[in-house]
Amino acid sequence: MAAAVGNGAAPGGGGVDTKAAFRQIYDALKEELLTDPAFQFTAESHQWIDRLLLFMCFADMTFSLSSTSQQMIDYNVLGGKCNRGLSVVDSYKLLKGADVLGEEEMFLACTLGWCIEWLQAFFLVLDDIMDDSHTRRGQPCWFRLPQVGSIAVNDGIILRNHISRILRRHFKGKPYYGDLLDLFNEVEFKTASGQLLDLITTHEGEKDLTKYNITVHRRIVQYKTAYYSFYLPVACALLLSGENLDNYGDVENILVEMGTYFQVQDDYLDCYGDPQFIGKIGTDIEDYKCSWLVVQALERADEKQKCILFENYGKKDPACVAKVKNLYKELNLEAVFQDYENERYKKLIADIEAQPSIAVQNVLKSFLHKIYKRQK
Amino acid sequence: MAAAVGNGAAPGGGGVDTKAAFRQIYDALKEELLTDPAFQFTAESHQWIDRLLLFMCFADMTFSLSSTSQQMIDYNVLGGKCNRGLSVVDSYKLLKGADVLGEEEMFLACTLGWCIEWLQAFFLVLDDIMDDSHTRRGQPCWFRLPQVGSIAVNDGIILRNHISRILRRHFKGKPYYGDLLDLFNEVEFKTASGQLLDLITTHEGEKDLTKYNITVHRRIVQYKTAYYSFYLPVACALLLSGENLDNYGDVENILVEMGTYFQVQDDYLDCYGDPQFIGKIGTDIEDYKCSWLVVQALERADEKQKCILFENYGKKDPACVAKVKNLYKELNLEAVFQDYENERYKKLIADIEAQPSIAVQNVLKSFLHKIYKRQK
Repeated sequence: MAAAVGNGAAPGGGGVDTKAAFRQIYDALKEELLTDPAFQFTAESHQWIDRLLLFMCFADMTFSLSSTSQQMIDYNVLGGKCNRGLSVVDSYKLLKGADVLGEEEMFLACTLGWCIEWLQAFFLVLDDIMDDSHTRRGQPCWFRLPQVGSIAVNDGIILRNHISRILRRHFKGKPYYGDLLDLFNEVEFKTASGQLLDLITTHEGEKDLTKYNITVHRRIVQYKTAYYSFYLPVACALLLSGENLDNYGDVENILVEMGTYFQVQDDYLDCYGDPQFIGKIGTDIEDYKCSWLVVQALERADEKQKCILFENYGKKDPACVAKVKNLYKELNLEAVFQDYENERYKKLIADIEAQPSIAVQNVLKSFLHKIYKRQK
Repeated sequence: MAAAVGNGAAPGGGGVDTKAAFRQIYDALKEELLTDPAFQFTAESHQWIDRLLLFMCFADMTFSLSSTSQQMIDYNVLGGKCNRGLSVVDSYKLLKGADVLGEEEMFLACTLGWCIEWLQAFFLVLDDIMDDSHTRRGQPCWFRLPQVGSIAVNDGIILRNHISRILRRHFKGKPYYGDLLDLFNEVEFKTASGQLLDLITTHEGEKDLTKYNITVHRRIVQYKTAYYSFYLPVACALLLSGENLDNYGDVENILVEMGTYFQVQDDYLDCYGDPQFIGKIGTDIEDYKCSWLVVQALERADEKQKCILFENYGKKDPACVAKVKNLYKELNLEAVFQDYENERYKKLIADIEAQPSIAVQNVLKSFLHKIYKRQK
């Protein structure tokens, strides 16, 4: 076993050293991609991919190598800051019951973590085009850059292809190589299918609130977010540990439930979170989103209240937004959410504690405690 | 071995029965995709994918089951009409030295053929967005349909994911499953990299003819077209035959050369082909394409002629186009092309005949004779 280097000490929390090691492995992977013999780079195409990677993958890691405590707090909340990628490393440590990994193990865990970050970058580049977005984490979207435009579609494809290149280089020959490719493919398929559902449900020009209900909301969230954000990191850690994913159907279900809960929190915080704390001003009402809140409101509203929703939801006018928010207040959706959160937590803990493996329980609890009652 | 059914008799030519069998397997694959347990379809999303597949995959197969002789001619010319897909079946028969395949073999060969058609559909949906195209084979591009728009980006991703779903269902467990995934991934990566080169070279707003030369042209064509159109079908047939692709580097090189020659023909026919025969009116000059013709013109032009090119290339005005065409005539590019074609043919035949396997020679010659001196 190679000596452990810079892979941190805080179990489940992803220490400063883990982040530094994770960061260093990004540099190695990027260098390999830019010298990939499968494509003869020109100076221009080399520079283009270099910028794309800097923009998409590294923009998300704003910490410096000497991390401050604020940045540590950032890291401990899921949703940005490479949490999906770093959680592969954390989960793998918990599965092994080890605080420190060997150099090779650490490299492979970080590499799979980066593959998830690359997958996320691929989704974000293309989602921003489809949603006609302007900014992403405070900077213009990639496709908004004057030189980029619709070339961003191909850049998204290239980011997805980088994952295949990375997996082939570092995992071909491992007994779980085929399962790893299948995993990334299946999760991508589910995510794209969830995105399709979302796009055809919230489609501009066909605004129809009668289409929104909890089944529709659940289906979109489950496919579009939960699989890649919650199931994928743990599934990667399980494969690294030599496990057969067919034996972990319950774990998959629990993580998909947790991912759904995470997205409900997101919908809640979009309206009720502190903009300074969550880092953005929510626009789900204006954007006619199939949010958990509007679904709850529709379920509870009488005919008159439904009229208010139908007339005001999905409009930019602040007066309309205020009417919707006022209705949410009338319907006491804050309390509805607190009840949902408490009920979800109890159910998830019970399901987790029914798992036969304590190590697996630890992984699942680590995820749950990162998101339970989060404010951002 | 299962009984041979409807898989045609004409070796290397793809008989009417082969096309009918190929068509039937499309129906089976589509049905499987629309009942894929990895995604719980809603009525709306089922209908959406059904239409997408009808539009993208089947639009290319305009023949009826009772094919006419005109449609037979269509088939025998590469470039449309599922030639890439059908050539997997033809190549596999030639490698086996068999006129007829067993039912299972036929199914697998057709399935890989359809995967190539799906890959092509994925590229075309996204390329049309990036090129801001209006029509594709006489009908509006998918993203131009009023209900579709930018959702087409996600539809492209779903088409790519269908390949992974199909391969997993029918090839998981085969000894060459990992190699098959790697093959499709690597070819997709090369194609997307070629597309990047093309996009940043011919980028609107930075029109600069000094960037165009034979090295640039060759690199774009090789990556963007040759690998997926020429190498991929034969590589699929080789894997089906139990061969290791590492032993077929020469075959890869020959097919990439042939694909490059095919694209040079395409560039030539864009200007000199009969629009009625090739089915479209060429616009490479108007579109500022890095065509083989403009590259040849730049190599041969004196300073005055270069000025004519710089002033008139890439403009919609028919007078400008006429000046460019006139210069091509002055430089005798028709003869330059005839020389190129004769030289390429001789070189390819020599390389093919240096191959140790007669079966492999037959596959390569079959491709070459489908494209040599083609008029459409």
